[in-house]
Amino acid sequence: MTIDWETVTHVTKVDPAKDLPPDLTVLEGTDLILVGGSDGVTEANTLEAVREIDAYRPDVPVCQEPNSSTHVSTETIDAVDALAVAAVYNGDREHFVGKHVDLFTEIGRKPDEITGSSVPGVGGFVESKGVDVVSDLASKIFGEGYVVQNLESTAATRAGVETTYTPEQVAGAALATETFYGFPVFYVEYSGTYGGTRDVEAASRYIEETTLLYGGGIDSGEKASAVLDAGADAVVVGDCFHDDPETFRETIPDR
Amino acid sequence: MTIDWETVTHVTKVDPAKDLPPDLTVLEGTDLILVGGSDGVTEANTLEAVREIDAYRPDVPVCQEPNSSTHVSTETIDAVDALAVAAVYNGDREHFVGKHVDLFTEIGRKPDEITGSSVPGVGGFVESKGVDVVSDLASKIFGEGYVVQNLESTAATRAGVETTYTPEQVAGAALATETFYGFPVFYVEYSGTYGGTRDVEAASRYIEETTLLYGGGIDSGEKASAVLDAGADAVVVGDCFHDDPETFRETIPDR
Repeated sequence: MTIDWETVTHVTKVDPAKDLPPDLTVLEGTDLILVGGSDGVTEANTLEAVREIDAYRPDVPVCQEPNSSTHVSTETIDAVDALAVAAVYNGDREHFVGKHVDLFTEIGRKPDEITGSSVPGVGGFVESKGVDVVSDLASKIFGEGYVVQNLESTAATRAGVETTYTPEQVAGAALATETFYGFPVFYVEYSGTYGGTRDVEAASRYIEETTLLYGGGIDSGEKASAVLDAGADAVVVGDCFHDDPETFRETIPDR
Repeated sequence: MTIDWETVTHVTKVDPAKDLPPDLTVLEGTDLILVGGSDGVTEANTLEAVREIDAYRPDVPVCQEPNSSTHVSTETIDAVDALAVAAVYNGDREHFVGKHVDLFTEIGRKPDEITGSSVPGVGGFVESKGVDVVSDLASKIFGEGYVVQNLESTAATRAGVETTYTPEQVAGAALATETFYGFPVFYVEYSGTYGGTRDVEAASRYIEETTLLYGGGIDSGEKASAVLDAGADAVVVGDCFHDDPETFRETIPDR
């Protein structure tokens, strides 16, 4: 399934280390599912969450957002519509370029291990067919330009974020995403706290083709609307999906 | 002038700190000019080189490849067809993401200073017209995914390159350029020495849309052909343009 970002205004972030809510009808009205978390994520629980959600809402794209290559396997790649890989502007070198080159080096080097032995024509080395498989796999990966704005979050610690960006720097990173790096998504992440609308306002000024996501502390319809009105293309809602389905329902914009 | 990378097989790298050769007919047959160098470059000598070359070959795109924002001004931006900004995969954090966010933050913050007071509608702040100017300016900038493979070069020192990449890592960086970052160019740079064809062979395996450039030590038609035959879309020739025009002529492929 190709992701049509134009139609995405509500994203559900599913932490595979947590239980899904018993009643998945709460997912009515969300436009995209991102599966990933900071602690306790495994390849197995990722796969379980993806399959359960996909069975319930096969019409909605499901993306894995792995923070380790150990969470990715032939099965997870087959099960999801896309892999979202974060590029953290205000993180350390590993989290902007280092890990990415490692990932693509690995993909290029070992297409058989990554894609499984069932792929015809791929042996222990990259031959013509292997290159096609690698290209197909790589094309399933898209980048998210991230700014992590909550220094207390696990996401910040993990990505080596030591300083938050000013709104002007957020605007600069947004402009760089739109015109320099080719990421389809720019993500303002307040991870667990509500950051208000100023970063979204700054970023949206320069964003036209890029999808602008805001995540962090969205626990009411008012906050979801405020962020969307400030220029975000979509809100990302995570915690209350697991903890408080009624609140979660309120964050889904009326159509 | 839009750059049609499909037609580019020979790039001339002009160091504005060096004298141009007295006879510019040597430029017959080259497809693109990159103006930039490591030492002694200024905004003034950049502008002088760009104008002299453009007067002689107005049909060939001229790009500035600045290594400092002090070499960029309203005049240089107006004079060139595009600005090429290097993103050095094996460099330090500043040379992949740090400088870029700074640059785009600066562009977003001060469109008046960058674009000059002659731009209508741009005051001391970004208003609607200002955003358009910023977007236009930003769209003149393109990224070059670089791998610097000569640790002894000034380019390596400047970009904080401490290790060269293996051919597998070069392939990974090429694949990342093609499918993850949106740079139109991937550049294997041996800066002053001839690196042979193995990196180009590794990179070309995964490159389809991206233009693959090789630069470094090209001082004969044989070396130019070897690199092109190995899969480079174009060779970049610098030193001998200034030092030895007859050798330079030999590096231009016959049509």
